[in-house]
Amino acid sequence: MMLKDIKSPNDIKNLDYKELDLLCDEIREKIIDTVSKNGGHLASNLGAVELTVAIHRAFSSPKDSIIFDVGHQCYTHKLLTGRYDRFDTIRTEGGLSGFMRPEESEHDPFVTGHSSNSISAAYGIYRANKISGKDGTAVAVIGDGALTGGMAYEGLNNAGSSRSNFIVILNDNKMSISRNVGAIARAITRMRNRPRYHRFKLVVTSAIYKIPKIGPKTNDVIYAVKEAIKRSVYKNNIFECMGFNYLGPVDGHDIKAMESLFKIAQTYNRPSLIHVVTTKGKGYAYAESKPKNYHGVAPFDVEKGSCASGKITYSDVVGKTLTELAGENKKICAVTAAMTAGTGLTEFASSYRNRFFDVGIAEQHAVTFSAGLAKGGMLPFFAVYSSFLQRAYDQLIHDCSIANLPVKILVDRAGIVGEDGESHQGVFDVSFLSSVPNMNIYSPCYFSELKDTVIKVSKNNELCAVRYPRGCEPEKLELDYSTDYTVIGGGKTAVITYGRIFKNVYDAAKSKNDIKIIKLNKIFPISKELIEEIKDQERIIFFEESMKCGGIVQHLNMLLAESEFGGRYEAHAIDGGFVKCAGVSSCLKKCGFDTESIIKTIGE
Amino acid sequence: MMLKDIKSPNDIKNLDYKELDLLCDEIREKIIDTVSKNGGHLASNLGAVELTVAIHRAFSSPKDSIIFDVGHQCYTHKLLTGRYDRFDTIRTEGGLSGFMRPEESEHDPFVTGHSSNSISAAYGIYRANKISGKDGTAVAVIGDGALTGGMAYEGLNNAGSSRSNFIVILNDNKMSISRNVGAIARAITRMRNRPRYHRFKLVVTSAIYKIPKIGPKTNDVIYAVKEAIKRSVYKNNIFECMGFNYLGPVDGHDIKAMESLFKIAQTYNRPSLIHVVTTKGKGYAYAESKPKNYHGVAPFDVEKGSCASGKITYSDVVGKTLTELAGENKKICAVTAAMTAGTGLTEFASSYRNRFFDVGIAEQHAVTFSAGLAKGGMLPFFAVYSSFLQRAYDQLIHDCSIANLPVKILVDRAGIVGEDGESHQGVFDVSFLSSVPNMNIYSPCYFSELKDTVIKVSKNNELCAVRYPRGCEPEKLELDYSTDYTVIGGGKTAVITYGRIFKNVYDAAKSKNDIKIIKLNKIFPISKELIEEIKDQERIIFFEESMKCGGIVQHLNMLLAESEFGGRYEAHAIDGGFVKCAGVSSCLKKCGFDTESIIKTIGE
Repeated sequence: MMLKDIKSPNDIKNLDYKELDLLCDEIREKIIDTVSKNGGHLASNLGAVELTVAIHRAFSSPKDSIIFDVGHQCYTHKLLTGRYDRFDTIRTEGGLSGFMRPEESEHDPFVTGHSSNSISAAYGIYRANKISGKDGTAVAVIGDGALTGGMAYEGLNNAGSSRSNFIVILNDNKMSISRNVGAIARAITRMRNRPRYHRFKLVVTSAIYKIPKIGPKTNDVIYAVKEAIKRSVYKNNIFECMGFNYLGPVDGHDIKAMESLFKIAQTYNRPSLIHVVTTKGKGYAYAESKPKNYHGVAPFDVEKGSCASGKITYSDVVGKTLTELAGENKKICAVTAAMTAGTGLTEFASSYRNRFFDVGIAEQHAVTFSAGLAKGGMLPFFAVYSSFLQRAYDQLIHDCSIANLPVKILVDRAGIVGEDGESHQGVFDVSFLSSVPNMNIYSPCYFSELKDTVIKVSKNNELCAVRYPRGCEPEKLELDYSTDYTVIGGGKTAVITYGRIFKNVYDAAKSKNDIKIIKLNKIFPISKELIEEIKDQERIIFFEESMKCGGIVQHLNMLLAESEFGGRYEAHAIDGGFVKCAGVSSCLKKCGFDTESIIKTIGE
Repeated sequence: MMLKDIKSPNDIKNLDYKELDLLCDEIREKIIDTVSKNGGHLASNLGAVELTVAIHRAFSSPKDSIIFDVGHQCYTHKLLTGRYDRFDTIRTEGGLSGFMRPEESEHDPFVTGHSSNSISAAYGIYRANKISGKDGTAVAVIGDGALTGGMAYEGLNNAGSSRSNFIVILNDNKMSISRNVGAIARAITRMRNRPRYHRFKLVVTSAIYKIPKIGPKTNDVIYAVKEAIKRSVYKNNIFECMGFNYLGPVDGHDIKAMESLFKIAQTYNRPSLIHVVTTKGKGYAYAESKPKNYHGVAPFDVEKGSCASGKITYSDVVGKTLTELAGENKKICAVTAAMTAGTGLTEFASSYRNRFFDVGIAEQHAVTFSAGLAKGGMLPFFAVYSSFLQRAYDQLIHDCSIANLPVKILVDRAGIVGEDGESHQGVFDVSFLSSVPNMNIYSPCYFSELKDTVIKVSKNNELCAVRYPRGCEPEKLELDYSTDYTVIGGGKTAVITYGRIFKNVYDAAKSKNDIKIIKLNKIFPISKELIEEIKDQERIIFFEESMKCGGIVQHLNMLLAESEFGGRYEAHAIDGGFVKCAGVSSCLKKCGFDTESIIKTIGE
């Protein structure tokens, strides 16, 4: 049977292991081929091919809910659950999502994209099934990287104390996005490297499992015996401490072995964690040797491998600026939540090791740890993607803002990010950041402006956020950005905007007469001078690449109401729900932020 | 030496243990006396008296930064750090805070109030000291309850992998606010109940520590030897798995024993966790026997003990309503993050055990677990204090909103909470909830309205939040609240408001002629009919007990701008930073929400 004939997971249940091996080869080929054209998450998906096959043989989706944490490892799942025909459309407009999306298939029980939520979600579904007497279990498949997130621990803590056969599968590829960090990573490494006892346990358990008519109860007796043996043989590990029955480590490319463990785990009446060891990038030599470079990739040549585009990004500018500053100012520290390369901090990390902190996928801790650094006299910069900073909203209020500590948040991927879709769009940060007292927000458009802004905030005592988009700068316009806002031209109509779309707004507005163009540089709090500048305009049009609710467009409207502004105020921001997957330009166009749409809007 | 003569922690360093015992008696007396008058956290503070004394003998505050997690256990710390004279003012307007506040004393290095942030903050300060070569360490003192929060785990994960003598003190009083839950609580109980090995280790370590001229290096050799012994004697625990050197359990009322361990821990060059076992409520019979009832208390009679006020609260109404509904609708589940009693769910918990979930102090998990329950066909209600819901902002967006799951958030303590001060004011939820797509927000004023609202949302498929304040309802006004908003009277001026302060707004407005009073019942999204209703008003005045940035007052202003409203719009919401500790009435007055202020505002 060929991959294209697999219409549902049931179709792989009767294949023999040789056929499965061939199937896995086909899956890998399809993934490599597709990602080389569409871009996407490669190494993590290649590592999880056999794991996913084993899962779909041991469980019955959609009756059993399988949740792949983050979704960096769900491509095989998509291919096996009736989405082969549409797989070419992955990460394109109107096509399949790169992550799990319930609207896409009944086999995607939950939205994924942000790390570490799978245990909580799966355990919720598991308990719902139990309450309503539904047949069917729920399984969380989580990477060792995602396990550094506190939310995963909260889920383990809750599920681990239950008498249930809830199952967590740990996909240990020894990596988060790059090398995994922290005490948990070390603990997992220890387990991985000392498989002797666990292998012994596995043999015993498997043998017993094969004896006919042995059900959960017998397994419970055996559990007690095993516990006794175990204590004499090998120390407990963290998962056992958390109430989970630990099974593994098992070779994540041995379908048969995994299948057997997954079936055993279902017979217990206590929660199990199965430790599966996979090789990130498996089956594609380039990715296997440099998994970090093949985590998320742009389209590439399969024969030659992927290579960096060479184009400088906003992240690069931030990283370079910060590294330069850190040479002069010994108080500057950089903090990342498992995104060293993504946020441009690779050079900083190697140049200033004792002032660089990769804290794992732990945005809450990252913000409060930064606040601690600031309290201790340092000048911490926490570089984080906009949509992941959502995890640390409380910490910004409680740990940074109340004491007004000079923590500097570098908000990367702010605004539309494109192909990663609704879970990754950085369109909420302006709303939630501007609700935090004492917060100052900058949103530069150009590289030079970004650099100057980072330098500026390194010299003041503000709690602040500097936000900038994914990718490259638009065509440059020489202007003075050193003040809170920049005014170009004049007229009865004022057009206001900030960030990347300034370029489009400028291009649109300069084609008209009698227009005052205002670019906000520091976007919040809004300066009083700005109100004076615009309060007598007949018409104000504000373009904002951010959610309207809580956006600057609303704050300005409020101040105008208080200044008894008498003109027309038109707000064009993101409204009406999430921005779905599509290229950045296409998304911007849909939101009305391309030059053409802006011309129309102004012209109306 | 008497307590009143202690001006700094140095003053207790030379006392002998008999004197310290007397001092502890005095401290307890002072705490009981003060809390009986001012209200506050009693049982947790009584449990931590000796612990705090031992800490201040073994460490040197403020050179060493001591952070008491949450701050439910920081009263002794306040008494020993020069705040005895002002202690009577605790939790009163202009007085001491009930939590740690850096603005109050150099001995309070960090803001506390929200759980589980102490390890992150202390580790940040610790690292800052190391980088800048400052003498002085940082210590996190964290309860077993706070350890159920994922953020604590993120901190342990980061600090545990370092080579540092960073110290965490686990104050294990076997309780969170009520009985602690989850796998971690069980693990801690196991450690507490099997002290044999650890006592052995302690004896060995202490003996070695007493040998003169033995420094960190020797301790390292000893560590290796101990590790070998340990493996043969006793299994590892979760903290050792996380890279911490585990010391304990030690009696949390034995100052000498604790002091010795705290000193030993400073000599290691690896992080240590010291497990201190305390008795919540120690020294006050009522609190010791019923610590749950004496966690946070209103003023009470010391001789007779504290008793429930008997007054019905919004939380009671929610709990009762939900319990009633759950009898009919078998899909209704209740979720709490360690706040069963506080959110009024005690009866639900005992009536519907299999549909009740206390997940620990884990708001992130609670929201996503609820989303999982909803996905599995249940109707989950997560009852949580407004300021703690801030922890789950990302989960509301990512795990509830993208898939638009019918999760019901019961936002307790919404609005001003009074004496707990800036960290606990529920004034951000409207801003952050209204930035979440698909979110519906209700803010009832009266008990009957609250009950009807809970019933209403139990019958629809909305993702929604029902928010209500701490305490009792205002004097009742018979009105129809079944629609999205209620209109009373008419006139050229419209006064709009919602929630508890409606009563004051109504009282103020009815004293004037020619006024239309509008009470919002469902506050978000704003209904289009409302815009029609008010767009021709000459003047609109909006009173909102929430932050102005991102508040309904702004959303309405935006819609009015889009409807070409030509009148005056006046916004009266909370602006200009945090609302400090004071009684609720006093806070409301300062914000301009008392009847008298409102009369003035309207009259202007």
